Formats: sequence, structure tokens, C-alpha cells
Amino acid sequence: MMNRGLLVIFSGPSGTGKGTVMKSLLNQDRDIRLSVSATTRPPRPGEIDGKDYYFITREKFLAMKASGEMLESAEYCGNFYGTPAAPIEKWISEGRDVFLEIEVQGGAQVKEKRPDAVTLFVLPPSLDELEHRLRSRGTEGNVTVCRRLEVARREIAEAKHYDYVVVNNQVGDAVKQVRGILSAERCRSCRNTQLIERILKHD
Amino acid sequence: MMNRGLLVIFSGPSGTGKGTVMKSLLNQDRDIRLSVSATTRPPRPGEIDGKDYYFITREKFLAMKASGEMLESAEYCGNFYGTPAAPIEKWISEGRDVFLEIEVQGGAQVKEKRPDAVTLFVLPPSLDELEHRLRSRGTEGNVTVCRRLEVARREIAEAKHYDYVVVNNQVGDAVKQVRGILSAERCRSCRNTQLIERILKHD
Repeated sequence: MMNRGLLVIFSGPSGTGKGTVMKSLLNQDRDIRLSVSATTRPPRPGEIDGKDYYFITREKFLAMKASGEMLESAEYCGNFYGTPAAPIEKWISEGRDVFLEIEVQGGAQVKEKRPDAVTLFVLPPSLDELEHRLRSRGTEGNVTVCRRLEVARREIAEAKHYDYVVVNNQVGDAVKQVRGILSAERCRSCRNTQLIERILKHD
Repeated sequence: MMNRGLLVIFSGPSGTGKGTVMKSLLNQDRDIRLSVSATTRPPRPGEIDGKDYYFITREKFLAMKASGEMLESAEYCGNFYGTPAAPIEKWISEGRDVFLEIEVQGGAQVKEKRPDAVTLFVLPPSLDELEHRLRSRGTEGNVTVCRRLEVARREIAEAKHYDYVVVNNQVGDAVKQVRGILSAERCRSCRNTQLIERILKHD
């Protein structure tokens, strides 16, 4: 089957446990990579360049963006954030599946530039359960929880535009479903046209 | 996730080992069903009505076809063969995945009537290997093998119109890939619009 890796746009509201699913996936499959964002904000204590973020200057960021080297970008609190294409392309050409943990709007920008990307949305079992998870973190006040729930509702309404949805009820089940999706996408005939040609041409 | 089963159009040239993959799937997953064709030819000794075929009269066949109760049909050596929709629909509504082992043209007829069907093509690792498998059966002469290979070549050229291709190199691997495809298709957002609505409407 195909030798190139997959690019996976991985979205879902805050509190769905997307990060936990991702961690478990990375543990189970050593060939999966998590894309690293670039930012112009200064590193916080303990943050490592190339692991937490690529820390770059404003000039470099804008130059990369202008030359199309960013798959998506956004400004937040006066700092730029974006997804550099080159490291992703390198991993994919090595056959690794690259996950992009990204919110809905950024995901849409990437999908436009990379129509071959697989889009996957992690859903909470219910909004009640999402609220419960957000509150049980204990770090956020009532106003923040309500705001997050409203954002979640808007994001979930966009899930229908994704290729796949996975309900994170039990992390193990969700991970199994994501791995099934990766396996299936590798079998898509549109990703295997060269293989079909090779079989037909061989005499 | 979705409660209805999937309809799977399962094709591949003679000698690819499609039947072996199917048998192993049926053994591993008790919720999978294999569609039974209807035919107007008389039963052969040992054949069981409703298991090998639905044996029906010419009049009944033509009436079913006329009223749209056949998903596809063909005439072969003066007998009619076809796929009745009703038993498939019953299984699917019970949540069972139904496989239709069918050649390329019949598969295309079904896909037109049931655009929600998943189409899956089993490929041989190579034409050399396919020839080897056909010859090692020892039941067919050189002319038959050559004719089958020519048919296989034409069928493989149609594989690109299928959703998925699975290379049957090792049966166990092929089965694992098919099961990954079933799992992934159940996660397709277009099959889960009601689930998304349910999450959004719940207060």
C-alpha cells in the first residue's frame, strides 16, 4: 500500500479529552508525529524550541507566511502562531502520520492548502458530560466554563464538515477508532493509484 | 455512533482469494452477513434455498425486478441472477454489516441505487502472483487461465472507482484492513449527522 504518511487535522472542543487521546496514540504508535507550531511569542520557562514550539522572530514568521511556508496562521494577543509546512512534509515523506491538533478555523485553512488531509473531530458524549469535565478540572470559574461551553457548541456545529467524528467516551475505544481510520485511509483507492498502475503494468 | 449496519460492495478478480478473506471475516465478526443472490436456475444437489441462493421462478424474478426490488440483476446462460434488496435492508436495520460479493458491473448497479454503500476491491499482490494462484488450483487449462487473467486485468483497471483497495498478500493482514475500513466508515461524519444534532440539542 501507499508509503507516504497521512496528514491528520485533529480538532475538538476544549475538555473533550483530545489531548489524552493524542497522548495514548503517540504511545501506541511510534510512527505518529505531532506537528509543532511556530510562534513569535517568547518561550516560557521550561519550553523547548522545536518541541513545544518553534520560537521565531516576527520578521521570519511574516517572511515564511508570505512565501507560503505556513499551512495556516493566526494572531492572538499580539503574537503570531502558525503551522510550518516543511517539517510536516519531511515526516510524511518518511511514511509517518502527522497529527495537527488545531481548532476549527485553522483546520479549515490547512484543508484548503492540503485537500488530501484527513479531518477528524473528537466529540464529547454530551454537552452535560463536557460541562462536567470542564468543571471537574477545578481551575476555571463559572463564567469561563459557560464561555467554553458556548465555544464548544459552535465548534461541534462544524463537526459535520469533518471526514470523521469520534466520540471520546472511553479513551481506549476512541484511540482504537482513530487507528481504524488511519488504517482505512491508507487503503483509499485515491491514495493507491500508483499501486494499481504498477499491478497492471507488470508483465 | 451510528446504529445501522453498512452495505459493502466487495469485488476482486477470480483467484485473488476474496472468498478466503470473506470466510475469515465471517468467522471473526458474527455481526457480518453475506448477501444471498436470487436465481431462476434450478438448485443443484445439496444447494439450500435461502443459503446458497434464493431459488425463485422466472415470473417472480421479473416481477421483483420490475418493482425495483432487485439492487442489480444479470442474465447468464439463459438464467437470471440478482440481489434482492429486502433481506439486506432487514440486516442493515438490525445493525449488521452486509457484504455483497459481486463483480464490477453488478457492483456499479448497486452503488447507483445505494450511494451510501462502501465499495471495496481486493487486489492480488501482482498479476504474476494471480497467475500462479490460478494455475496452482490445477483445475483449469491454459486457455481458461489466460482468459481469467485478461478479465482480471480489465477488472483491476476499475479498482480506482472503488472507495478502498486491499491487497491480499497475507489473508490475516487483508482481514485486519477490511475491519479497519468498517470501523472507520462507522465514524464518517455523514453517517453521524443525527448523533451531532443530538449532542447539540441536548440541554
